Amino acid sequence: MEPTTKHTWRTKLHEIIYEADTPAGKLFDVILLIAILASIVLVMLESIKSFDDKFHAFLDIAEWVITILFTIEYILRIITVNKPYKYITSFYGVIDLLATIPKYLSLIFVGTHALVALRALRLLRVFRILKLARYLGASNQLATAIKASRAKIAVFLFAVLIAAVIFGTIMYLVEGEENGFTNIPKSVYWCIVTLTTVGFGDIAPVTPLGQFIATIIMILGYGIIAVPTGIVSAEYTKASGKDRGKYSDEELEHLSKVNLNTQCCSNCLTEQHHDDAKFCFKCGCELNRE
Amino acid sequence: MEPTTKHTWRTKLHEIIYEADTPAGKLFDVILLIAILASIVLVMLESIKSFDDKFHAFLDIAEWVITILFTIEYILRIITVNKPYKYITSFYGVIDLLATIPKYLSLIFVGTHALVALRALRLLRVFRILKLARYLGASNQLATAIKASRAKIAVFLFAVLIAAVIFGTIMYLVEGEENGFTNIPKSVYWCIVTLTTVGFGDIAPVTPLGQFIATIIMILGYGIIAVPTGIVSAEYTKASGKDRGKYSDEELEHLSKVNLNTQCCSNCLTEQHHDDAKFCFKCGCELNRE
Amino acid sequence: MEPTTKHTWRTKLHEIIYEADTPAGKLFDVILLIAILASIVLVMLESIKSFDDKFHAFLDIAEWVITILFTIEYILRIITVNKPYKYITSFYGVIDLLATIPKYLSLIFVGTHALVALRALRLLRVFRILKLARYLGASNQLATAIKASRAKIAVFLFAVLIAAVIFGTIMYLVEGEENGFTNIPKSVYWCIVTLTTVGFGDIAPVTPLGQFIATIIMILGYGIIAVPTGIVSAEYTKASGKDRGKYSDEELEHLSKVNLNTQCCSNCLTEQHHDDAKFCFKCGCELNRE
Amino acid sequence: MEPTTKHTWRTKLHEIIYEADTPAGKLFDVILLIAILASIVLVMLESIKSFDDKFHAFLDIAEWVITILFTIEYILRIITVNKPYKYITSFYGVIDLLATIPKYLSLIFVGTHALVALRALRLLRVFRILKLARYLGASNQLATAIKASRAKIAVFLFAVLIAAVIFGTIMYLVEGEENGFTNIPKSVYWCIVTLTTVGFGDIAPVTPLGQFIATIIMILGYGIIAVPTGIVSAEYTKASGKDRGKYSDEELEHLSKVNLNTQCCSNCLTEQHHDDAKFCFKCGCELNRE
Repeated sequence: MEPTTKHTWRTKLHEIIYEADTPAGKLFDVILLIAILASIVLVMLESIKSFDDKFHAFLDIAEWVITILFTIEYILRIITVNKPYKYITSFYGVIDLLATIPKYLSLIFVGTHALVALRALRLLRVFRILKLARYLGASNQLATAIKASRAKIAVFLFAVLIAAVIFGTIMYLVEGEENGFTNIPKSVYWCIVTLTTVGFGDIAPVTPLGQFIATIIMILGYGIIAVPTGIVSAEYTKASGKDRGKYSDEELEHLSKVNLNTQCCSNCLTEQHHDDAKFCFKCGCELNRE
Repeated sequence: MEPTTKHTWRTKLHEIIYEADTPAGKLFDVILLIAILASIVLVMLESIKSFDDKFHAFLDIAEWVITILFTIEYILRIITVNKPYKYITSFYGVIDLLATIPKYLSLIFVGTHALVALRALRLLRVFRILKLARYLGASNQLATAIKASRAKIAVFLFAVLIAAVIFGTIMYLVEGEENGFTNIPKSVYWCIVTLTTVGFGDIAPVTPLGQFIATIIMILGYGIIAVPTGIVSAEYTKASGKDRGKYSDEELEHLSKVNLNTQCCSNCLTEQHHDDAKFCFKCGCELNRE
Repeated sequence: MEPTTKHTWRTKLHEIIYEADTPAGKLFDVILLIAILASIVLVMLESIKSFDDKFHAFLDIAEWVITILFTIEYILRIITVNKPYKYITSFYGVIDLLATIPKYLSLIFVGTHALVALRALRLLRVFRILKLARYLGASNQLATAIKASRAKIAVFLFAVLIAAVIFGTIMYLVEGEENGFTNIPKSVYWCIVTLTTVGFGDIAPVTPLGQFIATIIMILGYGIIAVPTGIVSAEYTKASGKDRGKYSDEELEHLSKVNLNTQCCSNCLTEQHHDDAKFCFKCGCELNRE
Repeated sequence: MEPTTKHTWRTKLHEIIYEADTPAGKLFDVILLIAILASIVLVMLESIKSFDDKFHAFLDIAEWVITILFTIEYILRIITVNKPYKYITSFYGVIDLLATIPKYLSLIFVGTHALVALRALRLLRVFRILKLARYLGASNQLATAIKASRAKIAVFLFAVLIAAVIFGTIMYLVEGEENGFTNIPKSVYWCIVTLTTVGFGDIAPVTPLGQFIATIIMILGYGIIAVPTGIVSAEYTKASGKDRGKYSDEELEHLSKVNLNTQCCSNCLTEQHHDDAKFCFKCGCELNRE
């Protein structure tokens, strides 16, 4: 009601940049997604030497274009938010900054290789657009299941680690340096490679005794791979079952669609407001939705 | 009711070729299955150089025999169907054509290697005969479970991909070109090899830091392999549970047998008609069953 | 009741050899188990060349001792059974014979290597003693779950095989002979190695495109490994749930103990009689239990 | 009630060393945890030759410091317990001794490599502090699930072992010594490497027939990996379901917190007393809790 006075270009921009319910907001997100993916592809192509040698100039220009686009976006995000400081220090604020500066820094530290890693962090920005993932709805159950399993899986992985250290030490003593088990950390690394059934084969037991112990480690790994799977599966069943118990099918249908709303408070950046919410449930600030 | 006038050789042929409920129809399917498998074995044998050198003439003739058989089948399928255009542009219509032409094309483009791939597509034709798979009945539940899990597993695989890109970039920086991580795409490839616990070992970390990060990646992969499994397992339990809830055991028994019927409308190629259906539920055209 | 007349040495021996409920029967089974394991260890040791060179005489004598023991057991089994022909042509009858003859055959065919394989078949005899496994009780549920999943897992493995053939052909075309994908069967072999996440690394993609396709194959393999697991897990839950529904906890307790009885009809070799059974439920012949 | 007389330094020390409910007890556990981890890191660093060469003196001193700390702890544990003999012969008593003596032994047996293994056993001491793991509460369900699955998984692993021996022997005959399958034990080792989907690739089939059999082994391994997972998952679901059935949500909440209490009887070392227990439920000795 009477949003005319509030509907300045700033609120409008906020809606476009931070939300995805309006056509403009969706378009912005799609463009951002493309820009992020393009920047990742650029980083990858640059790392291929034969490619970089041929198209260095082009890659350099493209990188600058994307850097400038990200800079503009970063500035707009700061401007359109009510509490810029809060955004800058937030997780995505830091990621956005880190995604922008590597190219600028490369002007100062010429030829520094490690800046590549910073640029790869841009990929984390994809998660922001995964607000889109919410369209998939019922993934809440998955989140519930993973959250419920987390502690148990952590305990479990801890046990795996202890087993790896003990078996690693034994293998170091049995196989010794001449067979590639040059020290205990490397031996533990091999043990984890085996327990997780990855099995690179860069190091492999050679002595009969070593191969026998390896057999035990493998069967152990085979047996225990069942545990985390069982946990997640059971917790997931429980998570869905609980919902089913509490709500009717129509309510569930509705529940899984509730999160479609992507509006984001321009004051405190809180998300996940109800469709008919007029005020932010966290800071009480009015939400700018028609 | 008086199917005498309609029961021409065309309707008869349609029944034999497209359906599998009559003895003749079943025989046709079995012969087709053998022909398809034989053609695949031929492609394989041809690729073994030592074998091809010895039996080239035989392989060539066998290939021609199968090609001609497939050509006849393709023509018969077009003739016996009411709307040939619809069949030709359908998925199986295209596959059937692609399965037929490579040998003819080889007359024009002598020695073109890539035609082999086209011939391998013949294997896709096997799925047509997997109408037979329906005899297995309850696989509907499996289909339901996979369909329900699809979106979540996609989100999940997407997360795995992002992890692979980030870890891949880090490994590229840590290990570097001298240890086989020559560029980021290759590094990402290695990362997926590791996360999926495949572990070829063609590339393997050499530096202690690289091996440490590899350990984290492996344990991560070990932990997250549990998630898709848990999803499918829970959805499958749900899918079966739902059926159990809604129907009695006798009804379920009946339900899982309903699909035995393989008749196929000669007008619009729609399948999965009820056993007592007289007309196609999609185009209203009379079904030719005694 | 008045088993005196029937209780000849033959019925007594039958009880000892074929059953495991009396102390003598259990002792016989344990001795048999040790003999089987010893014979397997012997086969293994003989295959280690350095060991065989040193202890050939000892291994030869030990092998003869076990062969003679098995021969005696085989003859006793024939004697104590009412219908020797039925035993001789039964699965275990054939295995027992095959476990006995290799050493005798080695007198005729001197130095024939392949007889080793026959001797390894002795291991199958272990399953006979796995009557003992029944002591574990509830493994019936496991059997039910595996039986219920069998058809679906078969369909599933068939789909995996088709995927392997198609991807294998593509990889053969992409990578070619120079990178180890010398022919399509080998390429399919590589594809299965990858899909099952085994990943030997004896063959590995070298070209960027090959590595990209390999990535897809691996993620596919990672995704579909979830399906059979989900099926077994759900079926197993169902199998246990069904029992729980039908029976009370005490009844279940009882049910899982019913199979402890290992008596075996001396007439038709049928097993799994009830504890209080006086006559074989299959041939009506009286069971010799006090 | 009047614990004044009993509250000597010994009971106080017992509480600190054996329990973790008081601040002092928690602090002791944390320090112990750090000492254990530090000692493990020391063992690892010592095994890295380049590191050991540089910092041998430092590592030696650090090792002595930790050894003396462990010695003091060991003596204190003996003193503060009512029945020292019981502690010394208990599992943790033996581990504690073995964790202490290697350094002293190294004075006698100079340069004995194998003492490293003894030192790695210190890691087992971590489990003692995993009393902390109990804080995670519901892991009881996990324990129940694993216990219920144990027997079935053992039967299952036994079947896997038999398959490995039979396929291993076949592969030994098919591939032979020239392709790395030098003897049957090695061949069985390769078979387990393959069945568990580890796939080192140190040995890999070379002949077409060998690769074909390998394919079967891999698909078998792929299929059966589903079974233990399914078992654990189903048992875990059952374990949680049972609890849910018997107790209300509040009761479950309470149940999962019951084990927070870590007091340990100073007479017989029994743990897991109820929060309001005044006497040990096993030996009747009074518990020293305010």
